[in-house]
Order: sequence, then C-alpha cells, then structure tokens
Amino acid sequence: MAERTDSPQALPEVSALSIGILGGTGDQGRGLARRFALAGHTVLIGSRSAQRAQEAAEGVGARGAENAVVAAEADVVIVAVPWEGHKQLLESLREPLDGKIVVDCVNPLGFDKQGAYALPVEEGSAAQQAAAVLTGSRVVAAFHHVSAVLLLDPSVDEVDLDVLVLGDDREATDVVQALASRIAGARGVYAGRLRNAGQVEAMTANLISINRRYKVHAGLRVTDV
Amino acid sequence: MAERTDSPQALPEVSALSIGILGGTGDQGRGLARRFALAGHTVLIGSRSAQRAQEAAEGVGARGAENAVVAAEADVVIVAVPWEGHKQLLESLREPLDGKIVVDCVNPLGFDKQGAYALPVEEGSAAQQAAAVLTGSRVVAAFHHVSAVLLLDPSVDEVDLDVLVLGDDREATDVVQALASRIAGARGVYAGRLRNAGQVEAMTANLISINRRYKVHAGLRVTDV
Repeated sequence: MAERTDSPQALPEVSALSIGILGGTGDQGRGLARRFALAGHTVLIGSRSAQRAQEAAEGVGARGAENAVVAAEADVVIVAVPWEGHKQLLESLREPLDGKIVVDCVNPLGFDKQGAYALPVEEGSAAQQAAAVLTGSRVVAAFHHVSAVLLLDPSVDEVDLDVLVLGDDREATDVVQALASRIAGARGVYAGRLRNAGQVEAMTANLISINRRYKVHAGLRVTDV
Repeated sequence: MAERTDSPQALPEVSALSIGILGGTGDQGRGLARRFALAGHTVLIGSRSAQRAQEAAEGVGARGAENAVVAAEADVVIVAVPWEGHKQLLESLREPLDGKIVVDCVNPLGFDKQGAYALPVEEGSAAQQAAAVLTGSRVVAAFHHVSAVLLLDPSVDEVDLDVLVLGDDREATDVVQALASRIAGARGVYAGRLRNAGQVEAMTANLISINRRYKVHAGLRVTDV
C-alpha cells in the first residue's frame, strides 16, 4: 500500500481487492455491488440464502453466496444488512471476519408518519456495535448516505457525493476511502473516529427529509477538502 | 412573506428583519453578527454584560446589549451560547422570547485528547431542549456548521457551505433558510424536523475531525438540491 498522506486524493492502491457485501440482496447492497463491479472489482453478494444471493448478483456483475462464504472469501467485507438482525449476524461471523476490514454502512432508523428518525443504539452506533462484536476485525463506518436509487440507475454515470469514512485504524480507513473513491463521482473523506459514527448514521434521516421536501436524491459534499 | 415553495431559492423576504444573537461575544456569534451586518441587517449582540456585548459588537457592525434586551428587541433571535448554561439562560428569557423565532445553533460537544465528541442530551438535542423550555417560541435549529474563523476573516468574501435548517414550523424554517442565504456564499436548506437536530449538532464533531486531518475549514453542501 502507498504511503500515508493527508490528502484524500493520495490513497492506497485497492483495485485488486475483492469486496463482499453481507446482506447484499437489499437495494443499498446491490447498488454498491453494481458500482464496485463497474469499477473492476470482484464482488461477492452475501445472503442467508445462496440462491437469493445469486439472484441478486445477476444483473449487477457480482457473484452470490451465503453470508459465511462471502465473509470468508472477500478481502474487504461491507455490512449492509437491516438494523434488525445486525448484531446477531455479526456474532455468527466473528471467525471468518477475524483480521479483516469490515465496513459497516447500517443506519439504525425508525419510520413513522413524519418520516425517518434515529433509533437509540446501546453501543452508540451500528458501527460501534460491530466493533464490540467483531473484536478481531478492523471496523470502519462508511457508505451511509449513498442513494441506492442512484447507484442502481444505469442512466447515472457518476454519483455526486462524498463518502464519510470513520474509524480508529488509519490504514483501514485509508483503504475504505480509496474504495469509496472507486465509485464514479464519489470521494472518500475521513470524518473522524468510530465514536463519532452515530451522528453520521443518523444523518441519513435528515437526507430522507431533504429528499422528501425537495424531491431529490441528496448527498453530502465536504467543502474545502 | 412570499408564498411557500419547495425550492430553496424561493423563500420569504427577510432583509428588514433585525437579528439578535444571544451569547454573541463568542467567535461563532460574532462571526454570524459580522455576516448579517454585511448583508444589511440590524444586528444586536447579547451578553450577560452590556459592556462586553458592546465591545464584541465593535468592529462587526453590530450593537451590543444585555441578553434580555436583545431577546426583547430583535425580530429573530439566535442562541449562540456555550452548551454549559444553555438551559438556564433560555429559562431566564422565556418571556421576551415568547412568540419569536428562536434559532438554536448550539453544539453540545465534549473534547479530549482524541478530539471532539457528541455529549448526550436528555431532550435529544440542544434545539429540543430549547423547544422544551421555550414553549411559546418557534424554535428552529441552524448554523451549527459555520466556521467562525471563516465568518470573521475579512479576506473571505463568501463561505462555501449549506446551512441545514431544522424545525417543525414551516413558516419559521422558511424564514431561517432565507436568513441563512443572506450570508454570502451560504444557502439555507431544510433538513428535517427538530427531532432530527441532534445528529446535525453532533456532526460538528466530525467537521472538527475533518478540519484537523486535512487542515481545512470544512463545510457541508447538499447535492441535488
């Protein structure tokens, strides 16, 4: 890997890394799978059912397998499961995820008539819960604000957003920033330690409010970086 | 006021509104005062001490007075006090703030060797605490992410950020969006109800992390709006 720098433009070479996406049958997972496959990565979509994984992988340039197989085979593993069941799934995959970079992009949100709102999380955030469960993994938080609609839309060549990347392991956050920047139009920006992941996850509720008010697919850009 | 629309570009006319800033002797308060004065607003800086308020007002084109005087006189009142003492100050100003638009921009943050982090707030956020205390006011949350350094820098003609505006009173959030857009370079964007203000306040910790990593004064822009 390349040397560390403080520029988001100078990041390690990650094009050879394979990417696994747990819970990759949902829209967010399939959208990320599609964009990483377009960027030339080997992408593995995981699900409880190998067959559902294979079905989801069709059409986005990925391979499908059971979550445990994906966790064992992929170089970097993205967690894109629903918040319900998040902890339980990770507990079941502690061994295959040991030593790996695990990227949590789960948003613990509730929904009612007034829209989305952040759910309280005992550990502070989904990412911190992942870190508490996966003590042998290098947990990073990222990809919370990507619009699944845009990622899956074949008419969208580039997305217009920065991916906020959080974590306590500098080498791991550098790798994830570089991976984020492989998505056409996106840029990975370091945005703090894992203890500050909760508000990034929760901000997804605000983006949903923005989308509803303005009828858009909003993203965030960080200025001056 | 102009008719409601869903465009951030079409907002009510607010140029005649006077703006009071409670705790306006701090950098954030003085920075906002300076920019609103530059935009042509009458600006009142409030402090516990009228003398300190007058000193802070000098050089930024504002007038200084005691907080209670500012709360009574200004059309729109911005709360820019430190988190410590936030609740107490607002409790003391319930009467003069009754019926007014009160804009809370307070970030409940702690700091240690690893940087900034979000403090837990019983009411969910500083803005919700303000709403709980000021039951007769129209509480809006905004201006959390503005960089005091940039606001105060005479060489900075325009800031590069969107001001996220949150609240449950549509007319009030429209007014605050319009006010935010009076700051050269800034744009007021509606970003949800008050119950989703906590993560916006807490995101200031992430911006501090970004500033530290990249040696910048970061802001956020909302794309596709």
